[in-house]
Amino acid sequence: MRGEDVTDADWIAVDWGMTNLRAWAIGADGGVLDSARSADGMGMLDAGQAAFEAALIRVIDPWLPGSHARDVVICGTAGARQGWHEVPYRPVPAPAHDRRAVTTAPARDPRVRVSVIHGMSQTNPPDVMRGEETQVAGLLLRSPDFQGVVALPGTHAKWARIVDGEIFHFASFMTGELFALLAERSVLRHSLDPQGHDAEAFTDAFEETLSRPERAAARVLGLRSEDLLLDADPRAAASRLSGYLLGLEFAGARAYWLGQPIALLASGALAERYRTALEVVGADYRVHDPEACVLDGLRAVRAGLRG
Amino acid sequence: MRGEDVTDADWIAVDWGMTNLRAWAIGADGGVLDSARSADGMGMLDAGQAAFEAALIRVIDPWLPGSHARDVVICGTAGARQGWHEVPYRPVPAPAHDRRAVTTAPARDPRVRVSVIHGMSQTNPPDVMRGEETQVAGLLLRSPDFQGVVALPGTHAKWARIVDGEIFHFASFMTGELFALLAERSVLRHSLDPQGHDAEAFTDAFEETLSRPERAAARVLGLRSEDLLLDADPRAAASRLSGYLLGLEFAGARAYWLGQPIALLASGALAERYRTALEVVGADYRVHDPEACVLDGLRAVRAGLRG
Repeated sequence: MRGEDVTDADWIAVDWGMTNLRAWAIGADGGVLDSARSADGMGMLDAGQAAFEAALIRVIDPWLPGSHARDVVICGTAGARQGWHEVPYRPVPAPAHDRRAVTTAPARDPRVRVSVIHGMSQTNPPDVMRGEETQVAGLLLRSPDFQGVVALPGTHAKWARIVDGEIFHFASFMTGELFALLAERSVLRHSLDPQGHDAEAFTDAFEETLSRPERAAARVLGLRSEDLLLDADPRAAASRLSGYLLGLEFAGARAYWLGQPIALLASGALAERYRTALEVVGADYRVHDPEACVLDGLRAVRAGLRG
Repeated sequence: MRGEDVTDADWIAVDWGMTNLRAWAIGADGGVLDSARSADGMGMLDAGQAAFEAALIRVIDPWLPGSHARDVVICGTAGARQGWHEVPYRPVPAPAHDRRAVTTAPARDPRVRVSVIHGMSQTNPPDVMRGEETQVAGLLLRSPDFQGVVALPGTHAKWARIVDGEIFHFASFMTGELFALLAERSVLRHSLDPQGHDAEAFTDAFEETLSRPERAAARVLGLRSEDLLLDADPRAAASRLSGYLLGLEFAGARAYWLGQPIALLASGALAERYRTALEVVGADYRVHDPEACVLDGLRAVRAGLRG
C-alpha cells in the first residue's frame, strides 16, 4: 500500500482458497498498490465461470477503470473441478513453479484476461493441492537453498517435503474444515466460543491427542459433556478443539516434521498455534510470511506469461 | 402392529434421539398397537417446550382422540438442555433403571401427560447419555444376568460397561454426527454417495484406521483426492468414510471391546457395519433388537409411574 492511484494497476494477483478470496493490485514495478479480500472461497460458490467471475469482479472492480484489459493471475481453487475452469495437476516430484503450467480461463468481462495456475498431484497416497504450490514456489524464490518441509496451515492443511528445489511428496489434512464444521454445525456449537484463545487448554489438548490419537472422536464429544457437567469455559473448549485437531494432524504428519527443518507459512492466530505445536514437538522451524510467498510465486508466473 | 384401533392406546412410548423421534402407541396389555417416526430429532429443533411439543403432537396426534389425557413416557434428548425440559443426570455407577428418575414436563395440550426419563452422567472422563440408559435398562430386563459391554451405535455412539446389573462406566463417540457432517457439509459431499454399501471398502478402511488411527484426518480428505485423480466409486468412498470413522471409534473404545462379551443394540445397515467390525477384532458378541430393548425400558418406567 503506497498511496498510488490503484487504477494504475499493471496486473492483479489472486489467491483463491476454500474459505477466502484474496486479491492484490500490482504496480508496474511489481509493488503492491492495494489489496482486498472476500469470504467467497470455493466452499461458498456454485461451480462454474458465472459465480466465480462475479465473485472476482466484486472484489477487484475498483482496480478496473475503462476497458483496458488487465492480466489477472490466479492460484488456488478457481482451477478446481468445482471452480471457475478446471485446469490440470502436475504430478510430483516437480518444481513448485513451472512457467508452462498456466491455463487461460474464459471471462465475459473485457477488462480481465484470466490465467489460472495448475495444481499438483500425487499418486501414492492420492493427494492434490491447488494454490499451495504457488506459495512454495515463492518461498523457494526467496530461500533458494531451502531443504526440508513446508507446513501450510489452512482449511485443508498441507505438509510438503522439498528436495533439491522440487516438491517431492506431500500430505493434506482436513484440520481447518473439521474445526469449522464442528464449531459451527455440530452439537458442540452450543459449547464453544471460537473468539479468544486459552493457550494452556490448547497445549494440553494438543499433547493429549498427539500421544493418544485414537481417542480423538471421544475427546471431541467430551467438550460437550464438560460444558453440561462442569460449565467449562466456551473459549477454553474452542481452544481444546483446536488442540485436538492439530494433535491429530501432527500425529499423522510425524514423518514430515520429525528431524526436518520446517518452514511454517502462516500468520496471525494460526501461526501462533502451529508455533506452539512445533515447540511442543521440538521441531527446528522458521516462520515465513505467507502473503509475501504467494505474491512472489504469482509474480514469477506473471513474468513467465509476458516472457 | 396387531390391527386394533389405535385410539385404544393406553399410553405412548417415545425415544427422542439427536436425529429422529420414534413413538409407539401401547395397548392396555403392554403390546404395541402402532408406531410412527419423524426426522425431528433434537438436532433439527429449537430448544424449549414449544418446538418439542409441536413435533411430538405431529407424530402422535392420530392416537389422541378427544380430551382423555394419556401418559407419554419419553427417553432421550427431550430432557437435554436444548430439549423440551431439562431433567437431571444420575451419576454412574448406578442401575440403568430407577423408577424415581422421571420428571413431569410442562405441556399445553390437555391430551398428554409427559414424563421425561433422567439421563446418566460420568465424572472421569466427563460424559453424558440420554436415552441409551433406557435401552440398557430394557436389555437387562430381558437378560438380567448379562455382564460385559453394551455397544449402542448412533449419532453419538456409546459403549457402556455393565457390572452386577449397573452401568459402571461408559464412553461416547461422535461417529454418526461426524459421518453426516462430512458426507453432507464438507468438500467430500462431491465425492460420496451414502446410498449402497461396498463391504470390502468398508472393511479395508476400518482395519487401516484401527491400526493407524493417527492417519484419520489425512485419510478422510484422501477420499476427495481419490475421486479427483482416480474417479473412485462414490459408493465405495462413502463406505470407506464409514470404515475410517468406525475404525477411529474402535481404536478409542479398545478398553471396552477387548476381552468382553458384547451386546450390540443395533438393527439394519448400522448393525451390519458393527457386526463386521466386531468380527474383524474377534469380539464375542450378540445382537439384540434395540426397539425391543427401549420399549421394555420405557414399559418399566411407565409401570413405576402407576405403581
